[in-house]
Amino acid sequence: MSRRLALLTDRFNTLRYEEGAVHLLDRRAYPFSAEFVQCKTLEEVATAIETMIIQGAPPLAYASGLALAMEARAHAGDSPEKLRAALAAGADRLRRTRKTGWDLSYVLDGSLKIADESISANADVERAIVDYVYGLVEEGNRIARDTGRYAADLMPDGARIQTICFAGAALNYMLYFAAEDGKDIRLFACETRPYLQGARLTAQSAREMEIPVTVVTDGMPGYLMWRKMTNVFVSTADKISLDGYIANKIGTYPIALAAFDNDLPYYVLGYNGPAPDAKTVGDIEIEERNPEEVLYCRGVRTAAPGAQAYYPAFDITPPRLISAIVTDRGVFPPRQIRDYFSAR
Amino acid sequence: MSRRLALLTDRFNTLRYEEGAVHLLDRRAYPFSAEFVQCKTLEEVATAIETMIIQGAPPLAYASGLALAMEARAHAGDSPEKLRAALAAGADRLRRTRKTGWDLSYVLDGSLKIADESISANADVERAIVDYVYGLVEEGNRIARDTGRYAADLMPDGARIQTICFAGAALNYMLYFAAEDGKDIRLFACETRPYLQGARLTAQSAREMEIPVTVVTDGMPGYLMWRKMTNVFVSTADKISLDGYIANKIGTYPIALAAFDNDLPYYVLGYNGPAPDAKTVGDIEIEERNPEEVLYCRGVRTAAPGAQAYYPAFDITPPRLISAIVTDRGVFPPRQIRDYFSAR
Repeated sequence: MSRRLALLTDRFNTLRYEEGAVHLLDRRAYPFSAEFVQCKTLEEVATAIETMIIQGAPPLAYASGLALAMEARAHAGDSPEKLRAALAAGADRLRRTRKTGWDLSYVLDGSLKIADESISANADVERAIVDYVYGLVEEGNRIARDTGRYAADLMPDGARIQTICFAGAALNYMLYFAAEDGKDIRLFACETRPYLQGARLTAQSAREMEIPVTVVTDGMPGYLMWRKMTNVFVSTADKISLDGYIANKIGTYPIALAAFDNDLPYYVLGYNGPAPDAKTVGDIEIEERNPEEVLYCRGVRTAAPGAQAYYPAFDITPPRLISAIVTDRGVFPPRQIRDYFSAR
Repeated sequence: MSRRLALLTDRFNTLRYEEGAVHLLDRRAYPFSAEFVQCKTLEEVATAIETMIIQGAPPLAYASGLALAMEARAHAGDSPEKLRAALAAGADRLRRTRKTGWDLSYVLDGSLKIADESISANADVERAIVDYVYGLVEEGNRIARDTGRYAADLMPDGARIQTICFAGAALNYMLYFAAEDGKDIRLFACETRPYLQGARLTAQSAREMEIPVTVVTDGMPGYLMWRKMTNVFVSTADKISLDGYIANKIGTYPIALAAFDNDLPYYVLGYNGPAPDAKTVGDIEIEERNPEEVLYCRGVRTAAPGAQAYYPAFDITPPRLISAIVTDRGVFPPRQIRDYFSAR
């Protein structure tokens, strides 16, 4: 294979633990700059998540785990009780950064468990957590790759793919495999206001892999489908409930409606499947962010003085609008996504 | 009535003919600044339309008529033949500025006819065209007011009104009358990328009239409807075909889909009705604008280097998604919009 994978495909490219500090690619500025932010305390990682320096459910979960490793290092000389208390308090702080994702809780709970065992065994707690998180990152890379492989097979030759936000490493793998398979593909990326992940991260990733990409505003996908300029919609999901609903970046639902109205398939890149704790859509809590972000674009004021704003970060798309959810274990109809757990 | 109408309600506030020049409020910068651009030649007016200094189907049509008055003044000493030829060439130039609107052709054809009669009668051609256009502006104000009055009656007490772009003077009148009638109303304005007419012009107009307004990004209206935070969608139409389709600002169609999916009414502010020359939706040509606009927001780069873009200015919404079209002659089901012509 001749093509290179984009930087954002391998999470180790954007996230490192070095000399007791967590280094994070600043996703707010990428690709205009490719700077790493160095977090030296757990609180700095929490703030980095809250201020969108790191984004995406798996990456921010990994960063949280590494923040606990840092906390373990800071309390290395403490008694087992004090160390356990510090880690529990740190995990609580990190848990409060985001509401919608499931990965965050998974990684925090896992890290606490590893730490607990490591404390009991009188082992190096910092090292144990880092090894655990690095293992998850490797596993996450594999999940993204397998998901992308399945999704690539769903793309027709001549695919004109609408997407929104940055659907993560699985999107990159999907594009990579489809192109390597010799398919003629083109990506249409919604800019994805207010943070412009589509115009920045998705467009940049496609460019790095030499996939043709067209940026459109968030109001345009419906028209492109109506004009038959696009023929498939692909997004990821921040959370999938067991009844087949998905929460994803705000703006996903209307594109799913437009795909349905134009008889086009909509595939969700579901990575490692549904959230076991979300039995129904009612269990998905939608995070609201600072409304000020809506009134600005890359620091420039966009709205009339005195206008208020509202910023829900995600919306809900029902299973009737989803053709299939693509995971590392294969392709599922949304209403059968529970089968993910028994699949291999 | 105690409330003041917003500046953008009366077209005479944004468009003047003085001492042989056309003065236009620069809508690209409003409300961040309220500057008038002075156009001294027909070409300058044409450029002002092309560069979005003046926007909206009726206002830009009026400006075009006034540009012909300027042309008549410039050729005042010429022979009738030369004057007629200059005006015809000028009208052709202005006609090429926009494809989708119907008002532009109407005003240009009317101005040429008035000029023709005036030349034959050896009268003041410049004056005749200005009087004709000013009469149209007054008539346009009346149409907007009557349309807004009908639309206000459709708003429930407790209306949470989603809108897109700036639906013009009729929207302002609708809000004004509904509020004066004592109804509790709130407006939710899509920012409307790339030109942000919603965040700027709509939000500003609402603020001036003390109507509460919340700005959201273009991907958010569907979620707000799903959450029951909004309960009605109102837009204008750049063009209405006789079979009940509308062309309006790109992004209208997905919001109409979301309204339909959530059983909410969608009212189109149709002003003076359908375009007589658009028998079917197939007769509506969708204008495409400079794709560079999509890659920037208020002059700041938003997209990855090297990304391409696409900028269709309008989309098409079918009659099955429209509850009613509101005009100065009353409220019509979209498929019966032909009845506008026989209504009084």
